[in-house]
Amino acid sequence: MLYILELLGVACFAVSGVAASRAKRPDLIGAVILAFATALGGGIIRDAILGVPAQSFRDTNYFAAIVVGSLLALQLPRVIQRLGSPLRVADAFGLGLFNAAGMMKAYESGTVDPAFAVVLGAVTGTGGGIIRDVLCGEMPSLLRPGELYVTTCLAGGLAGLVALWLGASTGIASAIIAGVTIGFRLVAIRFEWRLPAVMHWED
Amino acid sequence: MLYILELLGVACFAVSGVAASRAKRPDLIGAVILAFATALGGGIIRDAILGVPAQSFRDTNYFAAIVVGSLLALQLPRVIQRLGSPLRVADAFGLGLFNAAGMMKAYESGTVDPAFAVVLGAVTGTGGGIIRDVLCGEMPSLLRPGELYVTTCLAGGLAGLVALWLGASTGIASAIIAGVTIGFRLVAIRFEWRLPAVMHWED
Amino acid sequence: MLYILELLGVACFAVSGVAASRAKRPDLIGAVILAFATALGGGIIRDAILGVPAQSFRDTNYFAAIVVGSLLALQLPRVIQRLGSPLRVADAFGLGLFNAAGMMKAYESGTVDPAFAVVLGAVTGTGGGIIRDVLCGEMPSLLRPGELYVTTCLAGGLAGLVALWLGASTGIASAIIAGVTIGFRLVAIRFEWRLPAVMHWED
Repeated sequence: MLYILELLGVACFAVSGVAASRAKRPDLIGAVILAFATALGGGIIRDAILGVPAQSFRDTNYFAAIVVGSLLALQLPRVIQRLGSPLRVADAFGLGLFNAAGMMKAYESGTVDPAFAVVLGAVTGTGGGIIRDVLCGEMPSLLRPGELYVTTCLAGGLAGLVALWLGASTGIASAIIAGVTIGFRLVAIRFEWRLPAVMHWED
Repeated sequence: MLYILELLGVACFAVSGVAASRAKRPDLIGAVILAFATALGGGIIRDAILGVPAQSFRDTNYFAAIVVGSLLALQLPRVIQRLGSPLRVADAFGLGLFNAAGMMKAYESGTVDPAFAVVLGAVTGTGGGIIRDVLCGEMPSLLRPGELYVTTCLAGGLAGLVALWLGASTGIASAIIAGVTIGFRLVAIRFEWRLPAVMHWED
Repeated sequence: MLYILELLGVACFAVSGVAASRAKRPDLIGAVILAFATALGGGIIRDAILGVPAQSFRDTNYFAAIVVGSLLALQLPRVIQRLGSPLRVADAFGLGLFNAAGMMKAYESGTVDPAFAVVLGAVTGTGGGIIRDVLCGEMPSLLRPGELYVTTCLAGGLAGLVALWLGASTGIASAIIAGVTIGFRLVAIRFEWRLPAVMHWED
């Protein structure tokens, strides 16, 4: 079940890679490259930091999920466009599941400080989107004011850390991280919660 | 022989790094940094994904090949400019050899799914150019419509995969990957083969 | 003592990450992300190339140094602005210490050629700034003509290599690398030493 949700998250990230490339007029392979980079980027950075082989490259289903996501986004751009809101919900699920998987893997690696494990969860969830934006020649959208995104990852990771300190099992901590991240993100979208810009720089 | 071709490919990628920096007016060290990033980038990403130390950093000859390529490009820019077409041929050889080395290393690592091994070959061949373009503040050229580039890597990798499934040895599979990639790339340049842009986005 | 200087260097790099984001109007978390990327980027790339887990992620003090540097830069932007020159001195110390730590770690790893160990020292010292500039959507400042920066790293690394060949201990070689880098950088700032631009490209 969790695994299927994870593959759904991968496919959603692939769709967002293709959709982001739209204004850039890539050719077909360029759009698919962006799909791969968006779906795999966060996990690749996480595993490189942990010093282990990239997990996603072991798994044919990841490959298939990205290809399916890419084809959908390429063939049905109008459907994807109309799906706007469901897509953001799916992206929130991808974000939460990636955050939980990244944070727990870092926490259990034995080579990462707990505070940095929370950071690494956020890197796993958001790294693909950062690479996507850099490859499109744009400043990563999550660095600019917008509805809470990285913040929801950090909140989820912190909740998981507290749960682990209170004696929660790995499975329960993972569920808490994913749940808090997804819930917080959906509420942030719904009520348009934002962080303040850095105000005193205006003068 | 293969090793000498590989060093030639490294030197060609170094030349392309210096040449790409031209419009950006870097100082000398800036141009050399771009040469190193272009020549080493693909292999570094591949080895980071495999979770092993970067192979190129073991080898003084790689260092020498990059320095020689940089100096040539810096001292003889007009010669390089006139060499336009031979340079693209040499780049095709670099691409094919990097693709073969990357794909086979991934295939034999035991930590990579065959479909992703083909992807990793393409990453090895094209990663340096992507980093070069990102460092120059530009959208990577291979994401934009142009003569087939990544596609030739994928075709070469796929041909190698089929050969391996038919029982070919490592050496023969490597030769097939490199041969198909180089041949396909040269034909694509000669006849200006391109992938279609993503058409229905135009409206 | 060395460790405290290193943490100071980390904090300085964090300040430079926040300061660089200024013109880009990020929100609070965006500025802090740039601080983390600037402070940790060079070491992460080095460790990925060496194929080992990222060292900085083991250490709570690194986390604390980055948070303190970020908060200072966010709360006291005018102080930071007036500190301009002291900040550059602190950055020079960070650069020298990162260069020494990176070069010696590569040299002792057994997987890196000595010439590339010097390169890897420079990557450790400058990688964070490169990532910072790429995330801000700008061409990395060290690729453009300016007071010697990467060059001072290479000079320091080369001096250390000579010392090692003459029989110096690890500690002494580290001190020489850091000392030469810092001294050279401060002199380059004071006297505005620059490398020539690549002149014959002008025509």
